[in-house]
Amino acid sequence: MQKPLNVLNQNIGKRVIVELKGNREYRGVLDGYDPHMNLVLKSAEEHVNKQLRQTHELAILRGDNVIYISPP
Amino acid sequence: MQKPLNVLNQNIGKRVIVELKGNREYRGVLDGYDPHMNLVLKSAEEHVNKQLRQTHELAILRGDNVIYISPP
Amino acid sequence: MQKPLNVLNQNIGKRVIVELKGNREYRGVLDGYDPHMNLVLKSAEEHVNKQLRQTHELAILRGDNVIYISPP
Amino acid sequence: MQKPLNVLNQNIGKRVIVELKGNREYRGVLDGYDPHMNLVLKSAEEHVNKQLRQTHELAILRGDNVIYISPP
Amino acid sequence: MQKPLNVLNQNIGKRVIVELKGNREYRGVLDGYDPHMNLVLKSAEEHVNKQLRQTHELAILRGDNVIYISPP
Amino acid sequence: MQKPLNVLNQNIGKRVIVELKGNREYRGVLDGYDPHMNLVLKSAEEHVNKQLRQTHELAILRGDNVIYISPP
Amino acid sequence: MQKPLNVLNQNIGKRVIVELKGNREYRGVLDGYDPHMNLVLKSAEEHVNKQLRQTHELAILRGDNVIYISPP
Repeated sequence: MQKPLNVLNQNIGKRVIVELKGNREYRGVLDGYDPHMNLVLKSAEEHVNKQLRQTHELAILRGDNVIYISPP
Repeated sequence: MQKPLNVLNQNIGKRVIVELKGNREYRGVLDGYDPHMNLVLKSAEEHVNKQLRQTHELAILRGDNVIYISPP
Repeated sequence: MQKPLNVLNQNIGKRVIVELKGNREYRGVLDGYDPHMNLVLKSAEEHVNKQLRQTHELAILRGDNVIYISPP
Repeated sequence: MQKPLNVLNQNIGKRVIVELKGNREYRGVLDGYDPHMNLVLKSAEEHVNKQLRQTHELAILRGDNVIYISPP
Repeated sequence: MQKPLNVLNQNIGKRVIVELKGNREYRGVLDGYDPHMNLVLKSAEEHVNKQLRQTHELAILRGDNVIYISPP
Repeated sequence: MQKPLNVLNQNIGKRVIVELKGNREYRGVLDGYDPHMNLVLKSAEEHVNKQLRQTHELAILRGDNVIYISPP
Repeated sequence: MQKPLNVLNQNIGKRVIVELKGNREYRGVLDGYDPHMNLVLKSAEEHVNKQLRQTHELAILRGDNVIYISPP
């Protein structure tokens, strides 16, 4: 049994895929989170409808829109 | 009478189907949860509109999008 | 005067119809609930747009999507 | 000045119309409520798009979907 | 500087227009409110898409759907 | 560093533009607010899809629908 | 490990991109925030569907609509 936030914590410093509502996907290194699942990603690629749209050195994602978080 | 979170707890380590909004379904082994119904799944298959889209060794699903959780 | 959660409690062990958003209906035996109206159903039939789609020996429904709960 | 929940309380045992999101209307006898405006209705008629769809001896309506409650 | 709920309080017993999501408008006498902006209206006219649809001697409106409240 | 609610407070008595969801814009004098960003506007013009629809001597806007608030 | 709100704090006085729901993007200098991710932006450009629509000397953005915040 692992709490979801503990699993997030174990992935700090590792690459993750974050799928958001609206066919958005971010791929980057997880640098932080809080209990609302707000996330900090580094070196993040933003994909919309499977197309790479832009890259962000750093991005804060609002937890509200998260569908899932997964190691690649 | 069983509390929903207790039933989740009894399914730790077992296979479950999780249906999310937007015609998404995840099938995998339940590895964790919290009171918001955020879930940790292992060996998860992601189906969108009944098509297998990808597999995840590990995925954290946000409880907000859950419709139901059920043993297969 | 009866509190909604008390009425749920009186229906434990009885058959109920649960209508969810998105034209989904579950029919089964109410086995549990919590204050968020998360529900545990046993021997549940899932109907989408009035078509029987599948049956679940056990299902946890998230209260967030509930429109109404009613004895049949 | 009357608090909304007090007005609900005064209508216990009386017929009410409850309009929900999605062009749904329930007409029945108010038998209970809680602070979330979850409601218990008895002898309830369910109308969808102004068509009588079914009747329920008893129904628990989730407050989340309520637009208004009114005596007929 | 006036708190929104204080302004509501000053309009008790006066006519107000309440615009709700979904092109719904209620016009009536404000008889009560609570901190969620749930409202009690008396002698209320319900307009949908600018058409008068019905009148209610009394209606409890759920605050969740309110866009604005205004004296006419 | 300025807290959002402090900036609101500094604009009391001044003209503001408030954009709401659904292509609605209100322009008026900010007369009050609360921590939910519910707002009191005086001498407010309501624009829907960039068309002036009506004016309100006084309007209480529900914070839930706010996208941004800005001096003109 | 960095908490999302701490990362916001480190960007006070710096230029950020804020993407909101509905294909809206604001680019400006971050001047404040609160725990709901309500934001204060200075010298902000508002882009809708990638078109510059207007500029705001000062804007308070409601956190509810935020998808991500990122340095440019």
